[in-house]
Amino acid sequence: MAKALRIQNPDYERAVRDSFKKQTFMATLGAKLVFVAPGEVRIALPFSSALKQQHGFLHAGAVATIADSACGYAALTLMPPGYEVVSSEFKINLMAPAVGENFLSRGRVVRAGKSSFICVADVFDQPEDFDAEPIALMQATMIARRY
Amino acid sequence: MAKALRIQNPDYERAVRDSFKKQTFMATLGAKLVFVAPGEVRIALPFSSALKQQHGFLHAGAVATIADSACGYAALTLMPPGYEVVSSEFKINLMAPAVGENFLSRGRVVRAGKSSFICVADVFDQPEDFDAEPIALMQATMIARRY
Amino acid sequence: MAKALRIQNPDYERAVRDSFKKQTFMATLGAKLVFVAPGEVRIALPFSSALKQQHGFLHAGAVATIADSACGYAALTLMPPGYEVVSSEFKINLMAPAVGENFLSRGRVVRAGKSSFICVADVFDQPEDFDAEPIALMQATMIARRY
Amino acid sequence: MAKALRIQNPDYERAVRDSFKKQTFMATLGAKLVFVAPGEVRIALPFSSALKQQHGFLHAGAVATIADSACGYAALTLMPPGYEVVSSEFKINLMAPAVGENFLSRGRVVRAGKSSFICVADVFDQPEDFDAEPIALMQATMIARRY
Repeated sequence: MAKALRIQNPDYERAVRDSFKKQTFMATLGAKLVFVAPGEVRIALPFSSALKQQHGFLHAGAVATIADSACGYAALTLMPPGYEVVSSEFKINLMAPAVGENFLSRGRVVRAGKSSFICVADVFDQPEDFDAEPIALMQATMIARRY
Repeated sequence: MAKALRIQNPDYERAVRDSFKKQTFMATLGAKLVFVAPGEVRIALPFSSALKQQHGFLHAGAVATIADSACGYAALTLMPPGYEVVSSEFKINLMAPAVGENFLSRGRVVRAGKSSFICVADVFDQPEDFDAEPIALMQATMIARRY
Repeated sequence: MAKALRIQNPDYERAVRDSFKKQTFMATLGAKLVFVAPGEVRIALPFSSALKQQHGFLHAGAVATIADSACGYAALTLMPPGYEVVSSEFKINLMAPAVGENFLSRGRVVRAGKSSFICVADVFDQPEDFDAEPIALMQATMIARRY
Repeated sequence: MAKALRIQNPDYERAVRDSFKKQTFMATLGAKLVFVAPGEVRIALPFSSALKQQHGFLHAGAVATIADSACGYAALTLMPPGYEVVSSEFKINLMAPAVGENFLSRGRVVRAGKSSFICVADVFDQPEDFDAEPIALMQATMIARRY
């Protein structure tokens, strides 16, 4: 989506994978990093009985969590080495009940600035079918922080 | 915050507590319902090593989750009997790193409509100190659904 | 963007053009409807000295206005005859200063429900160059109302 | 709303009034700055036939514009001398039709950082009646820029 992707860290995939592994919340959810490319990251989340809202669907907070992480890591692929990503703000529309066995969130960078990255994520209730209608849509600001 | 609170379900607290118990995701996080009043609900979340982002802080998704549930249940207190709450959309600003031992989210209804409820939540890194600056701020739309 | 566009009003273009004409605020801004297709509407706005913020750029409120109307009319193209569109909520990221002579907002429907439509809009500082980076990005909920 | 208001510019009111005057879009709308205090600014907007959406109500874009400017100038009251304010992003819920003769938006700073300010605004269809229910609610990020 970002028109002029400038890769500043040739090892961007390792940066994303190392950071993802440190997010214990991803393991608690059972979320998996399934795709890492410049400006785009996908996270899969199998449904589990530990993630339910009151009707037995996937909790909106879990939907938002995988969309947030997908946006953040999409941004991290475009940051220089030695930087980490922090969520600044996001907005999500939950467009359909999160009913399904396997969820997939796809985060993409729309505009990469020096320190802030505007990203979008769509969440699907079918893995890898991007022609399906998303069940959720996020617009987010991610910040680059030196660590 | 809502100026004219109309309680349509005298048993609103039971409706909230019963629904909260069914949200297995709340138990997975370790979140607890600590306050239920008409138009306002508070949820506490002790920090745990299962909820971390890559720097060891509370994951933005966990922050958003307790804010979302606090907004949703604040809305549910004002719904008629036999209704349930569904998140339609929310926006959250993560204003400070979520560092702390105990987090508290406070959800409040700003405007109660027939089927949609506009709510705000603030999240604190100190329990029950509402004079402190919040670390996160949410604005959300919650929907009443007959079940 | 909406995967299954169902046109319920064969006269959708007239519905949009008639409604747009009634929006005196569009004329006050100098905004023009330049493209109407099922699920997508574009609005052009020439810069004028009446629309400035304090640095002489286009005011964020004017940027948001043409994005909001583009989203709303994109939704209206998919509504049944006899319906009108009302903005329920939107979120906008202003990603770059709005400097330019001609602005274009492009609103598209992402998910069309019975009464609510989730839309996105991007705003450009060049007319009709969709390969350029947008200067603003909106995510919105539009509501169908019988009138 | 901001718990620890630190005034860095003793001439904050002049900074706000000077900047407001340069916003020609405020004059185009007929908006007036009616209250300036540290961390809070109010903008009044009389309804006019130049600001209508298709039903004859105040256009959502005009509502958003006065909320955005109120948030921005609330932030500017807390910035050091020599800084200006730029809108980074905002989200607005339009909670009731904007029907009325006089609108008022009240912007307040919730958290003041070094360069970014989180603000909220509520918009009323009655001037100076803050016990009424707001018709719109905004949550925004404003940025301090040296000029």
